[in-house]
Amino acid sequence: MEIQLDRHSQTTLFEQIYTRMLDRMYQGEWPPGTKLPSQRKLAEQLGVNRSTIIDVLDELKAEGWLESKTGSGTYVAHNSWQTLFPRQYHWKERIRAGIHQPNLQTIQLINEYETKEIIRLGTGELSPSLLPTKQLEEVLQSISLDPRTIGYSEPKGHKALRHAVAVHLQKRGIQTSPDCILIVSGALQALQLISLGLLPQHSTIYYEAPSYIESLHLFQSAGMRLSRLRSGAENITYSKSQKHGLFYTIPTLNNPSGTILTEAERHDLYQHWTNLQIPIVEDDVYNELAFSAIPPAIKSVDTAGNVLYLGSLSKTVSPGLRIGWVVAPEPVVDRLADIKMQFDYGASSFSQLLAATWLASPHHETHMQQLRENLQQRATFTEALLAKHFHNIAVWQKPKGGFYIWLRFHQPLVTKALFLKLLQKGVLLHPGYLYDRDNHHHLRLSFAYASLPELEKGIDLLAQAVKAMTT
Amino acid sequence: MEIQLDRHSQTTLFEQIYTRMLDRMYQGEWPPGTKLPSQRKLAEQLGVNRSTIIDVLDELKAEGWLESKTGSGTYVAHNSWQTLFPRQYHWKERIRAGIHQPNLQTIQLINEYETKEIIRLGTGELSPSLLPTKQLEEVLQSISLDPRTIGYSEPKGHKALRHAVAVHLQKRGIQTSPDCILIVSGALQALQLISLGLLPQHSTIYYEAPSYIESLHLFQSAGMRLSRLRSGAENITYSKSQKHGLFYTIPTLNNPSGTILTEAERHDLYQHWTNLQIPIVEDDVYNELAFSAIPPAIKSVDTAGNVLYLGSLSKTVSPGLRIGWVVAPEPVVDRLADIKMQFDYGASSFSQLLAATWLASPHHETHMQQLRENLQQRATFTEALLAKHFHNIAVWQKPKGGFYIWLRFHQPLVTKALFLKLLQKGVLLHPGYLYDRDNHHHLRLSFAYASLPELEKGIDLLAQAVKAMTT
Ligand SMILES: Cc1ncc(COP(=O)(O)O)c(C=O)c1O
Ligand SMILES: Cc1ncc(COP(=O)(O)O)c(C=O)c1O
Repeated sequence: MEIQLDRHSQTTLFEQIYTRMLDRMYQGEWPPGTKLPSQRKLAEQLGVNRSTIIDVLDELKAEGWLESKTGSGTYVAHNSWQTLFPRQYHWKERIRAGIHQPNLQTIQLINEYETKEIIRLGTGELSPSLLPTKQLEEVLQSISLDPRTIGYSEPKGHKALRHAVAVHLQKRGIQTSPDCILIVSGALQALQLISLGLLPQHSTIYYEAPSYIESLHLFQSAGMRLSRLRSGAENITYSKSQKHGLFYTIPTLNNPSGTILTEAERHDLYQHWTNLQIPIVEDDVYNELAFSAIPPAIKSVDTAGNVLYLGSLSKTVSPGLRIGWVVAPEPVVDRLADIKMQFDYGASSFSQLLAATWLASPHHETHMQQLRENLQQRATFTEALLAKHFHNIAVWQKPKGGFYIWLRFHQPLVTKALFLKLLQKGVLLHPGYLYDRDNHHHLRLSFAYASLPELEKGIDLLAQAVKAMTT
Repeated sequence: MEIQLDRHSQTTLFEQIYTRMLDRMYQGEWPPGTKLPSQRKLAEQLGVNRSTIIDVLDELKAEGWLESKTGSGTYVAHNSWQTLFPRQYHWKERIRAGIHQPNLQTIQLINEYETKEIIRLGTGELSPSLLPTKQLEEVLQSISLDPRTIGYSEPKGHKALRHAVAVHLQKRGIQTSPDCILIVSGALQALQLISLGLLPQHSTIYYEAPSYIESLHLFQSAGMRLSRLRSGAENITYSKSQKHGLFYTIPTLNNPSGTILTEAERHDLYQHWTNLQIPIVEDDVYNELAFSAIPPAIKSVDTAGNVLYLGSLSKTVSPGLRIGWVVAPEPVVDRLADIKMQFDYGASSFSQLLAATWLASPHHETHMQQLRENLQQRATFTEALLAKHFHNIAVWQKPKGGFYIWLRFHQPLVTKALFLKLLQKGVLLHPGYLYDRDNHHHLRLSFAYASLPELEKGIDLLAQAVKAMTT
């Protein structure tokens, strides 16, 4: 097998070999039943480690392209679905964009292990014990259904919910009407709709790392480019073709760093991007989790209609609701609503009913107060553990709310190896490089998910592993 | 304004002019504030009817590109969102694909009027009075929440629901396991996931008209081509590049024709497409609504793993649930699940819980029996009205179930004009050309949505309008 490998490319050897092997199959050069050269031979021919070959073959087997016959070798599988899979690079770009970069392999492992019995030290979700389960059940049981509300929904979502969200947002300083609100199936879907609905294909998504957005691939899948800035108000130089795009920011309790921008910083960002005529996506899903007062949303000063504001009930009430919202100028909301109708005919009416009833009830405020207290206690508890184990080898900021501590080790020891080592010990980590490429100093710790004994045990195991590496 | 219009193109003049005007704006040739020539002048310059110009200008105004200043003319709007909208043709292809063809203007009107007080003679939805509202409420109120089920969901959906669906599908002759089932937010989303997840960009979607699929644009938006066949088992000739694709079919109670394929026809389809190594998407959302016994699903004989089977609770229980399913080989289900996670982190847990409890309860069977009886009565009632008004000017098949009568007028009088005329009289029609391009003989009548007095009145108004046209 002859392959030109480019050792200076940004694309890993894994991905280059993987792609070329798929090409062979797509182009009919390796029809079903073809026997592949041995692992040893492939490694020799390509001049790479045998482990790389094994990784590629394992991946192709897992995906059903190849099959092993015991004692006889590896074959191209007889699988009629093959014709379904893409021949064009284009598809790969869109759906598999970067899927074989190391960080995504980590995410696949995280997804796999998140449903298993394991100590989850980085999970971005409330512990089941912190969810207002009883209160939700009460609200659920109080709902009386109207047959007109359980048919296909209005494109923008149930009016009662949009109304409740409009009222809810007044606390963030946002004055808006139900017409400018779109109900989405979680804030993630909002990003998906924006990506497919509002941007031309080669747009640029600007952001400041570390950011949640680096762990997603939806913009790349739609043919967009992510562009990291050193600072959100950095003076970007762009060619005309790059001008199309967005600035994405999480100004309150950033995932993963926990940072809260000051009012002045918010103001600067708003001015900067509005002057550039580049819209801002303000992702505000953590705002209700701040331990003390925070500045108003950027959206609250948006007289130019330049800000798309995202919110969600996932981080405060229940991720399973799949209820979030976008606030934007009406034509934008209409456009996104039209696309949502083409995707899934709207969000679940039952979730919408429950969310509307919940937000209009006193449950929400009572729950939030309690939740913030609980999170504060967990943060203090976790900080004490960090102080005990890591005081001379790492630093961190005192959490101001939310779920996360962005723990920085003096040494760049947060590697895939550390991740795998802890996995073996029954601890699931969220390495910093998921949110900040090539950063091996940071871990995203979450004090929101694991129980206190699990936090204690997990951090202890982490400390042992780290100490074994540093001494 | 100089524009080369192509009068032999498949693209309408409307769309050609619309596109060129947008180009002017995208390319900075018409910056914000530019004053446009008068309507009269534009019509003259382009050699088209003034009404076409007015339509284009109205559309561009509605979309916020243009604005009128009273007494002064039409201007390119000052709107910072402008930079968001696409400069590339690509975006237009993807999202606005064909959006300005006459049929879609009709759909936009339908969507707009479906939320208004109007007699809806074609709506593809159960009447609110036919929904099992009380029983759903009962089930809802019986649900006790487990905090572990209201967090982020497993990629394929709640195990309990997948299990309930597997049991449910045995009635269709389908033996499958929960591992090969993906829960989706309605069958529409399944098509979206297939379109973005399994097909390379220039794939072909084969289907037999009339079909629901002609009223959707999601495949075209993803860069695919729809290809109508005269018969589902037609011998297609395709070049290698066209080979990638799917055959889409609604073998039971086709939307809109109501046809039910025989067992032999199903068998032929299966053999035909499986031999071609082109997968089949079997859309079976209406199967439980047949008035008498029907052949098993195509999926039930699918030993080759060549069929993607779609189901939904929208047509039987509640569209607002947004619960549907895909049954497919496990690697395909895994791939679609992974994409769904990237889109919206899974379907609403509350809908999933409700659906699982509902399907496992005796409510479902009781409701379905009652529903079929009600639909049968409505069908008979509607047929009597047709016999009274249309016996010598139209033909139709006796409905075998579902929602629809595919009414064929001898004369091609089902035009946009008829649609608009009835709209004025307070009656919303679903013209046949939405499901079968260029067909002006058919109407999709629905006996499922309007109340009996509304059906009577609506069909009477339709008959008057039709008679005025034919005499
Ligand atoms: C910053 C940020 N935005 C959006 C989301 C997605 O939330 P939802 O569950 O509302 O889709 C998350 C969750 O991980 C997040 O951290
Ligand atoms: C044939 C067919 N498939 C799929 C759908 C979409 O149904 P759902 O509400 O499950 O997305 C419809 C509804 O109009 C339909 O008629």
